[in-house]
Amino acid sequence: MCEANVYLYRDDIGKEELFMEQVDKVVPQNGELYLENIFGQRKTIAARIRELSLVDHRVILEIVKESEAG
Amino acid sequence: MCEANVYLYRDDIGKEELFMEQVDKVVPQNGELYLENIFGQRKTIAARIRELSLVDHRVILEIVKESEAG
Repeated sequence: MCEANVYLYRDDIGKEELFMEQVDKVVPQNGELYLENIFGQRKTIAARIRELSLVDHRVILEIVKESEAG
Repeated sequence: MCEANVYLYRDDIGKEELFMEQVDKVVPQNGELYLENIFGQRKTIAARIRELSLVDHRVILEIVKESEAG
């Protein structure tokens, strides 16, 4: 199985925090990201994709700052 | 190995076309996407991520229209 763990890059501390495990689907929608994992759990977050590193099973997100929101 | 095939969604024909195989890294940069596959091949494209479907090893992109470019 090739799902990935999704991490949130925290600009303020320069580190990544685990946001959701074993994610299958990631879909940008209305300026947010919709995530769904292999257990059927769903989350939506006002973030954008910062990097995919698929061989390492990693998806890195970063928060969309309010000042950038459309 | 959990790399994915990257497809380009063609809005005009409503279909996806294979753009790059066995991609490891996808990094948004300067309004474009930088892609790198497990063979070390690199491509950059003025596109955005439309959907990730990781269990199916699929990354779907869509072209950024000129009128939307920043």
